[in-house]
Amino acid sequence: MAVVLAGHQYGKAENRVVRFQRDTPRHEIVDLNVTSTLRGDFADAYLTGDQSKVLPTDSQKNTMYSYAKEKGVSSVEGYALDLARHFVDDVDPVHGARIDVDSYAWTRVVVDGHDHDHTWTRSGSEVRTAAVTVAGEGEAQQTHVVAGLKDFTVLKSTGSEFKDFLTDAYTTLEPTEDRVMATSLVAQWRYDATCLADGFDFDAAYDAVKRAFLTQFATLHSFALQQTLWHMGKAAIEEVPGVVEVRLAAPNKHHFLYDLARFDVPNAGEVFHADDRPYGLIQAVVARDDVPAAPLAWER
Amino acid sequence: MAVVLAGHQYGKAENRVVRFQRDTPRHEIVDLNVTSTLRGDFADAYLTGDQSKVLPTDSQKNTMYSYAKEKGVSSVEGYALDLARHFVDDVDPVHGARIDVDSYAWTRVVVDGHDHDHTWTRSGSEVRTAAVTVAGEGEAQQTHVVAGLKDFTVLKSTGSEFKDFLTDAYTTLEPTEDRVMATSLVAQWRYDATCLADGFDFDAAYDAVKRAFLTQFATLHSFALQQTLWHMGKAAIEEVPGVVEVRLAAPNKHHFLYDLARFDVPNAGEVFHADDRPYGLIQAVVARDDVPAAPLAWER
Amino acid sequence: MAVVLAGHQYGKAENRVVRFQRDTPRHEIVDLNVTSTLRGDFADAYLTGDQSKVLPTDSQKNTMYSYAKEKGVSSVEGYALDLARHFVDDVDPVHGARIDVDSYAWTRVVVDGHDHDHTWTRSGSEVRTAAVTVAGEGEAQQTHVVAGLKDFTVLKSTGSEFKDFLTDAYTTLEPTEDRVMATSLVAQWRYDATCLADGFDFDAAYDAVKRAFLTQFATLHSFALQQTLWHMGKAAIEEVPGVVEVRLAAPNKHHFLYDLARFDVPNAGEVFHADDRPYGLIQAVVARDDVPAAPLAWER
Amino acid sequence: MAVVLAGHQYGKAENRVVRFQRDTPRHEIVDLNVTSTLRGDFADAYLTGDQSKVLPTDSQKNTMYSYAKEKGVSSVEGYALDLARHFVDDVDPVHGARIDVDSYAWTRVVVDGHDHDHTWTRSGSEVRTAAVTVAGEGEAQQTHVVAGLKDFTVLKSTGSEFKDFLTDAYTTLEPTEDRVMATSLVAQWRYDATCLADGFDFDAAYDAVKRAFLTQFATLHSFALQQTLWHMGKAAIEEVPGVVEVRLAAPNKHHFLYDLARFDVPNAGEVFHADDRPYGLIQAVVARDDVPAAPLAWER
Repeated sequence: MAVVLAGHQYGKAENRVVRFQRDTPRHEIVDLNVTSTLRGDFADAYLTGDQSKVLPTDSQKNTMYSYAKEKGVSSVEGYALDLARHFVDDVDPVHGARIDVDSYAWTRVVVDGHDHDHTWTRSGSEVRTAAVTVAGEGEAQQTHVVAGLKDFTVLKSTGSEFKDFLTDAYTTLEPTEDRVMATSLVAQWRYDATCLADGFDFDAAYDAVKRAFLTQFATLHSFALQQTLWHMGKAAIEEVPGVVEVRLAAPNKHHFLYDLARFDVPNAGEVFHADDRPYGLIQAVVARDDVPAAPLAWER
Repeated sequence: MAVVLAGHQYGKAENRVVRFQRDTPRHEIVDLNVTSTLRGDFADAYLTGDQSKVLPTDSQKNTMYSYAKEKGVSSVEGYALDLARHFVDDVDPVHGARIDVDSYAWTRVVVDGHDHDHTWTRSGSEVRTAAVTVAGEGEAQQTHVVAGLKDFTVLKSTGSEFKDFLTDAYTTLEPTEDRVMATSLVAQWRYDATCLADGFDFDAAYDAVKRAFLTQFATLHSFALQQTLWHMGKAAIEEVPGVVEVRLAAPNKHHFLYDLARFDVPNAGEVFHADDRPYGLIQAVVARDDVPAAPLAWER
Repeated sequence: MAVVLAGHQYGKAENRVVRFQRDTPRHEIVDLNVTSTLRGDFADAYLTGDQSKVLPTDSQKNTMYSYAKEKGVSSVEGYALDLARHFVDDVDPVHGARIDVDSYAWTRVVVDGHDHDHTWTRSGSEVRTAAVTVAGEGEAQQTHVVAGLKDFTVLKSTGSEFKDFLTDAYTTLEPTEDRVMATSLVAQWRYDATCLADGFDFDAAYDAVKRAFLTQFATLHSFALQQTLWHMGKAAIEEVPGVVEVRLAAPNKHHFLYDLARFDVPNAGEVFHADDRPYGLIQAVVARDDVPAAPLAWER
Repeated sequence: MAVVLAGHQYGKAENRVVRFQRDTPRHEIVDLNVTSTLRGDFADAYLTGDQSKVLPTDSQKNTMYSYAKEKGVSSVEGYALDLARHFVDDVDPVHGARIDVDSYAWTRVVVDGHDHDHTWTRSGSEVRTAAVTVAGEGEAQQTHVVAGLKDFTVLKSTGSEFKDFLTDAYTTLEPTEDRVMATSLVAQWRYDATCLADGFDFDAAYDAVKRAFLTQFATLHSFALQQTLWHMGKAAIEEVPGVVEVRLAAPNKHHFLYDLARFDVPNAGEVFHADDRPYGLIQAVVARDDVPAAPLAWER
């Protein structure tokens, strides 16, 4: 037998690129955490230490900062597309690139009832994500755009139950018809090729998907977090043109009703202990049945 | 010489108490992280292992959850006052108590243009804090209320300079007349005894202090983060009745202008690297000169 | 078109199971963080909210704790195998299971030159990992065992260079013939079926792989982190029977030589700034060429 | 009334200084996280924005890196003393300085039975700390040295009980005569002036204090964490010359016996759930009664 190099990739992770638009007195802010991953003809760097085909990760970093000005950041996804195409098309040994972006939202400060021109506070815990993959050259080039959000914490104080579940010898859980349901959602959704056309509005699509998620989470009377996830994914696909696949991972952030009866205090779903660990983790993939799977879009 | 027990205290830290108001279909949520610290006649527990004067931290935890229902949480500060007074007044060996509370804000979800009755998302990164200290019994009892906020991230893209500073042999920093100023503010402010009167509105006072901070941060043309802190503290005291002392700690979250000239790309304050460490840390105490200091209010 | 449930799985994450062996005065400790992921016939829970085939994650948790006593923890991998097989073989709707375990090491305290019977301190930052996957029933059942380590921080102060790399318009990095190389390694390695035989010593294999990694990291004069990873993976496969595939991810924890010439102070590779972000991230898959790939072993 | 600037200080936090000794083939590593805090004549920077007495935090950073070479790092405390004295003695508006250092330990890698010259792995989770305060000039100058450790995780599987405690209406805790005791200790100890003499061995003192702590933790049959802390502090003072005051803060990292009786499985102190939050937090100050208190040594 022989030992072989069966796979490899490299890049620069967690570049904190902040871009201001200051052409007018009213400035705009874009606040990003950018990671590049390059795939290609780099085997010699591993096997013999020959770096002649390796573009330093430092150069990749420089490119990210420079592109924030050269190409601008019309949308997170557009910026990632520019970078991914550059590495694949312009750097010879690179045959594929993935650009991951976390985007942090800021809220403009209001002073005396008026928006302030150049001051913001960090918005909620939610982080917007994008992952763009470009592979191959010329006619055969594939491009995938996956948008998403993470650390999106949502909670409902009623309208959720969990009962009639399977039991075994280790089951001690009591069924409930009214519980707190809370999660810190991680969701990603894949766009089809329509997103690559001029004028596709990634920001509007993001808002529409988020709205679909929230509406389902809030309004569905839930028999399980599983059911809620399914309806969230389904609504996003049905309501937002271009979305063809949704992947959801939802930690069940348990809220345990505190036993106050021991102190002769009633507790009708009012006082809970929010627990840290362990937590249920529920996952789902929801997709259109007429669109081929795209494993490359998801490969980290 | 002898070795002595020169100080001691104990309590239960980081109790995640979640309280819902569900008397009407429109629920309300209060989401807290509560820590108790008891002071008193516990030396024997240390010196001989005799626990007969030690109320278990588990009992303190039970009390926090039960009080969330028994007394309710009219305000974070009111809830902390109820707990601190209980431990001092009702548990014999306890002569002093400090209750620290972190409070996490939630934003009601809007569905089809209407507020939803029982669904929320976690609001921004900002955490509201309260620290209530009660010491002594009867007439001599002292009570201190300190409110605050932390993880309050705020940024301005212009209106800040740093120049004409002291230089020494190790100074290489270039002066600047236009920079990004950003911080993740930790602020605490002490109320005087008026806050203990019925009807004092802790929530309104919190909002007013925060508004004063934001207005100063946004509108002051800043020669240094030091100057901005001074004006923030001063405005809070001058504008919010009951506030007599403000303590501020502000990490200078450095944003370094990225050198794009190397690539023949202009960068007029547009593209920055947001750095993690190290960071400047600027601190200030601002106070009314006619109010005695209250070291006990700040003692952790 | 229709929207379909294209994938799903669920489980209980981050169960902090601590198991003591106390049959003799000299106790032993095993300290684990266990996560279950079940795959099977759960679509109805998503599509209709019917939970009749869903074993609660709470029951999975109970099983983990009970198995720590019932079956014991002869090795991390053996414990994970017991759990995975139980869920697949004994719970009807479950057709596949993955058990992930993080294991924290403890060092026995020495008092007056003698090992203490029942006191330990937490060992280094390194975390040992195991991921066992069981899929299918009866003859067709597949079983995969992947061991690993993470947060394994290793550094060399010389014996590393980086030069003769590809340059482009964004390259400003200077080549170097002597630098600090440091990483916080994440490594996973797959065993072949020999590991399922009685008497396979997972602990000895773990130690041997770690030793192979360290020896290569220390002794190879490195032209790049890529080259070091290749030799680490190759050595593990060649030296440790049963290891057939190694996956490595290594953040390049940059140490930047501090420019002291500005202060007329020499700095011959002596004083560095250890930077946080961004960082290069280098990845490799090293495998025997006579062993079929096993994508299921790696699927999270 | 007037609003006044009642206090202020500033500095550079979390400088990651790494210093290698490479005069011989066998290198040595010192890995530090350094924070400076300067006190002095800086009020104008706050009140009017005048920076002429403010040494930039960037210059403080440069000094830390340069001193790692100029003065070397004979010990963590010695390095902090050099820096603190420099800022107070050499920078005119500075009247006091505090230098905080976290020090990360590394373990030399062994290859084929021999220590490797220039490769290390990060040692345990424990972090060594030092806090040096210098205040005033000339004859009146005060100097305080506080050493410490944090994230020092220690556990005993027996030899600990908790019973005969005070009970109230909220007490539900069961007494126990055999439990797991674990903590992640934060300890700081103050040296007297003997530590400023030439030849005082800070590293030996650190090791001796840690040994005293561990011996007490392991060997004392404990009636409460309080009692254990007292004996740890007392032993450090009695056994280590120069140590005059010890401050200890110990989170009680609860290990809850898992109820396996529900599954007809015995559990004689063998299987526990290690919980995250809430936790008891026990604090103690232990001191020699013939040494005056030194509040400045502890002021952050």
